[in-house]
Amino acid sequence: MAEMGMGKGVTAGKLASNVQKKLTRAQEKVMQKLGKADETRDVAFEEGVINFNKQYTEGSKLQKDLRAYLTAVQTMHESSKNLQECLSDMYEPEWYGKDDVDSIVEDTDVLWTDFHQKLVDNALISMDTYLGQFPDIKSRIAKRDRKLVDYDSARHNHSSTNKGKKGKDGGIKITKPASLLERATPVWAQGILSAHNIAQSNLSRNQAEDELERAQKVFEEINEDLQEELPSLWNSRVGFYVSTFQSMAGFEEKFHKEMGKLSVLS
Amino acid sequence: MAEMGMGKGVTAGKLASNVQKKLTRAQEKVMQKLGKADETRDVAFEEGVINFNKQYTEGSKLQKDLRAYLTAVQTMHESSKNLQECLSDMYEPEWYGKDDVDSIVEDTDVLWTDFHQKLVDNALISMDTYLGQFPDIKSRIAKRDRKLVDYDSARHNHSSTNKGKKGKDGGIKITKPASLLERATPVWAQGILSAHNIAQSNLSRNQAEDELERAQKVFEEINEDLQEELPSLWNSRVGFYVSTFQSMAGFEEKFHKEMGKLSVLS
Repeated sequence: MAEMGMGKGVTAGKLASNVQKKLTRAQEKVMQKLGKADETRDVAFEEGVINFNKQYTEGSKLQKDLRAYLTAVQTMHESSKNLQECLSDMYEPEWYGKDDVDSIVEDTDVLWTDFHQKLVDNALISMDTYLGQFPDIKSRIAKRDRKLVDYDSARHNHSSTNKGKKGKDGGIKITKPASLLERATPVWAQGILSAHNIAQSNLSRNQAEDELERAQKVFEEINEDLQEELPSLWNSRVGFYVSTFQSMAGFEEKFHKEMGKLSVLS
Repeated sequence: MAEMGMGKGVTAGKLASNVQKKLTRAQEKVMQKLGKADETRDVAFEEGVINFNKQYTEGSKLQKDLRAYLTAVQTMHESSKNLQECLSDMYEPEWYGKDDVDSIVEDTDVLWTDFHQKLVDNALISMDTYLGQFPDIKSRIAKRDRKLVDYDSARHNHSSTNKGKKGKDGGIKITKPASLLERATPVWAQGILSAHNIAQSNLSRNQAEDELERAQKVFEEINEDLQEELPSLWNSRVGFYVSTFQSMAGFEEKFHKEMGKLSVLS
């Protein structure tokens, strides 16, 4: 799907190749799930992905809560302004403290506006920037998963075209993928599959080796990038949470201190 | 209508008497509107009623704004708590300032709760008490209006049964109320009206005088109470608005001052 989105001028050949890729991947996953083919696993990376998902969920919740808080700040600003203006409108000029009332109403409005604006300019924008990194990495994790399946598939294909010799897999016995597929294929499709199998068995050992090298290179490239990025993103949360809390608490402290300073009639 | 609500055991006679009262009042109002009968007016009292209505409208708006403000305080308290708890949950024990975060979250919650409670216990309750006086006075103003029409009606009735003599009205010429009603009465009802008119003209002068005295007494009783209460209620708004503003500003000042004192990581 990601490959299909790359351009509008997708040719029929490109489309057929994507369909073939999906078919090969599905076949490889079935074999792996059935324990008929070994699956390349990287426990450290998988933990990194678990952390990434946790971090993404946490960050999204924080963003949601921050937006709700900002809305509440705005609502309280408005309702406080309405209430004060209502009192100020009814307050007649000769009553005690009329000037104080008017100046408190005005100053309060300025402080609320300033507080809300600071929260938006700082906390919300840095939150959005922080969270903005996640969708791209998420789609690259998914791409790495697909490229890993391609690599495993190429590895098994290479190993089966080399069977009899000791392959790269160091003697891991791999069931010929087609045999299971053959059993699951309806009678009407046996002819198509059989033609496909003949074509496959015609693949030369060199072709399988080229394919394996290519798949490995593609996978390793994306894998290496993520191996670096995931832990660094994970660690960045510490500074981000600390600075978010600090700056929010700082704005709140400043806001409340200044609100507390507004002179009250007494 | 107000009289009908006094008891469930309203007798047929009472009901008929209420219907008669309404009829007489409607008739009197038509005569007054047409300028065919003089209307007792008290400009000072009417100004008092204008003030009363203004004061009621203002108070109701203030109450509405105060309630909206209290809801906003609660919403901001909740969303601030959610946001802080979200941060606090994600904050790991070994990170810088964990204790500060936890204590700020806790203290903030206490201060918000306290602030909201104080506003409810003071501003809102005193507002409700203040506004609670209005519906009773409003219905008594309406009752005074009805009793004034009764009084005018009795006065005109008395004057017409005394015509020829110089009446209490000091020579104001009052058209006989029935003549207009007769013109407006459909043919089928002329018989009923005519019987009614005969009954009316049979009212002795003494009866009309008794009726006038009674109507005057009833009106004056309710009128005197309101003549005292309206200006006093009107003046009470000054102290009420000033103290409402003072106490709200005081709670806000205290709240913000204490919020501003919460130690921030720095």
